[in-house]
Amino acid sequence: MSKPANPQGTRDFGPQVMRKREFILSIIRTVFKKYGFEPLETPALELLDTLEGKYGEEGNKLLYKIRSNKELFNEVSPEIAEEIKTLLPNRWIPGNSKLGLRYDLTIPFARFVVQHRNDITFPFRRYQIQQVWRGDRPAKGRFREFTQCDADSIGSTSLLNEAELIQIYNEVFVNLGLPNAVLKVNHRKFLEALVNELQLEFPVAKFTSTLDKLDKIGVEGVTKELMSYGILESKCNQIFAIIGHAALTTQNLETYAKAFNNNAIALQAIDDLSHLLTFLEGSNLQIRVELDLSLARGLDYYTGCIFEAIVPNSEIGSVSGGGRYDDLTGVFGLNDISGVGISFGIDRLYEILQVQDLWPKDLHENKSVLLCHFDEKTQRYATQVARKLRNMGIATLVYPDQKRINKQFDFANKIGVKYAIVIGESEMETGMLTVKNLNKGEQVSLEVTQLKVYLAT
Amino acid sequence: MSKPANPQGTRDFGPQVMRKREFILSIIRTVFKKYGFEPLETPALELLDTLEGKYGEEGNKLLYKIRSNKELFNEVSPEIAEEIKTLLPNRWIPGNSKLGLRYDLTIPFARFVVQHRNDITFPFRRYQIQQVWRGDRPAKGRFREFTQCDADSIGSTSLLNEAELIQIYNEVFVNLGLPNAVLKVNHRKFLEALVNELQLEFPVAKFTSTLDKLDKIGVEGVTKELMSYGILESKCNQIFAIIGHAALTTQNLETYAKAFNNNAIALQAIDDLSHLLTFLEGSNLQIRVELDLSLARGLDYYTGCIFEAIVPNSEIGSVSGGGRYDDLTGVFGLNDISGVGISFGIDRLYEILQVQDLWPKDLHENKSVLLCHFDEKTQRYATQVARKLRNMGIATLVYPDQKRINKQFDFANKIGVKYAIVIGESEMETGMLTVKNLNKGEQVSLEVTQLKVYLAT
Repeated sequence: MSKPANPQGTRDFGPQVMRKREFILSIIRTVFKKYGFEPLETPALELLDTLEGKYGEEGNKLLYKIRSNKELFNEVSPEIAEEIKTLLPNRWIPGNSKLGLRYDLTIPFARFVVQHRNDITFPFRRYQIQQVWRGDRPAKGRFREFTQCDADSIGSTSLLNEAELIQIYNEVFVNLGLPNAVLKVNHRKFLEALVNELQLEFPVAKFTSTLDKLDKIGVEGVTKELMSYGILESKCNQIFAIIGHAALTTQNLETYAKAFNNNAIALQAIDDLSHLLTFLEGSNLQIRVELDLSLARGLDYYTGCIFEAIVPNSEIGSVSGGGRYDDLTGVFGLNDISGVGISFGIDRLYEILQVQDLWPKDLHENKSVLLCHFDEKTQRYATQVARKLRNMGIATLVYPDQKRINKQFDFANKIGVKYAIVIGESEMETGMLTVKNLNKGEQVSLEVTQLKVYLAT
Repeated sequence: MSKPANPQGTRDFGPQVMRKREFILSIIRTVFKKYGFEPLETPALELLDTLEGKYGEEGNKLLYKIRSNKELFNEVSPEIAEEIKTLLPNRWIPGNSKLGLRYDLTIPFARFVVQHRNDITFPFRRYQIQQVWRGDRPAKGRFREFTQCDADSIGSTSLLNEAELIQIYNEVFVNLGLPNAVLKVNHRKFLEALVNELQLEFPVAKFTSTLDKLDKIGVEGVTKELMSYGILESKCNQIFAIIGHAALTTQNLETYAKAFNNNAIALQAIDDLSHLLTFLEGSNLQIRVELDLSLARGLDYYTGCIFEAIVPNSEIGSVSGGGRYDDLTGVFGLNDISGVGISFGIDRLYEILQVQDLWPKDLHENKSVLLCHFDEKTQRYATQVARKLRNMGIATLVYPDQKRINKQFDFANKIGVKYAIVIGESEMETGMLTVKNLNKGEQVSLEVTQLKVYLAT
């Protein structure tokens, strides 16, 4: 028998890790709800039809497919299939599975919206917190099964949606203890405007994907690549004279209008972002919101504002991204529904909180109390005490076996329980509880009814 | 393009359904925690090695496998594989996936315990609420992707564990509004004792699986099947004279001791169950706990107490099952760790609550308030009000677009929002909020600070 193991790129989350993950998820979930987003869950299994061709060539390769013999059979050319059929008349068991595993939450959401469009009231705000699967090569911080937390608002073109997503970013990062987070904002029209104003005669998508490499290959690298496509060095210099980053303010937007020579396409971006700013007036954001014209975001479906959040000095790339899409549902046959959404990667946030040790101090604690006892009689009495404590809403464990009291304390310590309650003959007589604080070694004697207040202080 | 759809046997859970599912899950989770169970999550992807051979022949067929071309290649016989290799030199792309989807939560839990045995403090109580996948033929109440809620206590042989699981059953059903639920209890040793006492000369497992059909084929059917295996009719009559169901009480256990002629194996079961009852003294269970000697539970790994919960008159079979297993981790090479666990099927509970309409009255409500407005100016003011309300912890939506006020009320009604707050010029002047109860049509004027109390009443 081989040694039991979980698959490469996947993880088991034991109680300690679960508490930390739940700390992050609960902050994000609470903020999403406060902004009127409602929960949605879609199945892990999707039809391959739904998934294939939606994530680019690279994404297609990383899809987890559930395939039957029959399907594999169909993947070979018809001539060869015929030959195999003759060779293996009984080995090709027909199967009807045409399934894959969810690769992100955006495409399933688009599929849901189109499929249920007659039951949905627009504008529709949903949040979705579920696993996704990608057959990628596992690496530090890159997993094959991981969790995404998405919030999307679909069916409204108002920039208020973007403004509220920025407020959500602010609240989430502040509540996570990361007020130093930076939210980079750009607008796809700025990228179009660059191509247009500088007459690059170059597809916007290709320009965007080159620019997207700025973080990795720097100004020189991007210039080199653009020049290899035939763009003059002088134009490249013009590009880098324009793009840069600055706080997202009305004033800076005006500066960009000039830099773009009041290009009509750039003015559309400026108009949107100015409008967005009116909705943020007085919102006292603690995170830095930066207008970063080099922000490109690879995904093709973005059409308006785009977002990317980073935590400086964390040595971890983007922890969230998102943007406005005008035709996401078009691939499923429903046009002209605009939406905007963001997605947090909680595994990366976890990594940052872990390295910077930003967890709340009591998060390592097991919130249960442990009832300890000396023999069958005191254990039976302990089960009655447990009933009372649980009725008061206190998570309670009764040590289930007959072991020496020190073994029981040892157990409490190991599982992170802070309070042990010792039930002996005298406690049975008086009805009092002897409560031992295992961290401090102190112990007090309390009435059952006093326990809840004592634990809360 | 084909019509977008989710795969057969899977479901999308929109906001209304999510609220109901969360109602059930939150009750179960809260009770599990109160008894000191801690959360665990394992990956959806498991190595096929971990899954295969653990669920019987039928289960093996229902496993969802993620297979690469290479693996399918290996499934054919070596000779034929050689031939295919010659035929398709370039078509068999090597793959290294040997993965399957989680089929239940018990085997992954056993795998986790063995893999992490040096980091786990025993006795270990974990709860796990996750999806499982089975390639079964979809039917009413049977899905290919569904949720299980398990609680297991492993590393302790004390009957206190069983007693607490019974208390958990009671609390969960009472809190769900199903105090009429019936928990059937049996002990595997009773089944062994029947075979032993009646000298059936028949494998216990075969006897158990025949008896398991009692619900479906009745006494006559079971008798017929047992006789076909060579058991005399008189012995069958003796079996049915013994088995039956009665409340689980000390008195009834004594009656069974006599019926079993004080058979030594039966006395072990009676001893366990008597011991269990001492831990339940004074616990005032509302559900009926029934000793049902015909309860067999198919799974091979149970060795002690077994449980099955039903809701009478629901026309739905068991909603939960479980039991004591003495060697679950043995398949992964770790022997002699005894545990006991139960598993709730939340999809079936959902079905029962839905049919009997047992949802809390306000569960259909969207808890957000909607801020309505007349123009850009009042909308901008509304966003400032929204900020205050959200800071007070009130879930708040601002209608994002410029639409007639009746359209905005209409939107609120459709998404189940009960309170619309109308922001007009006069509200901007006075700072008061006009709050409209859309169910009753009433409206009141309130200070911002009064809103939270008003909404709570």
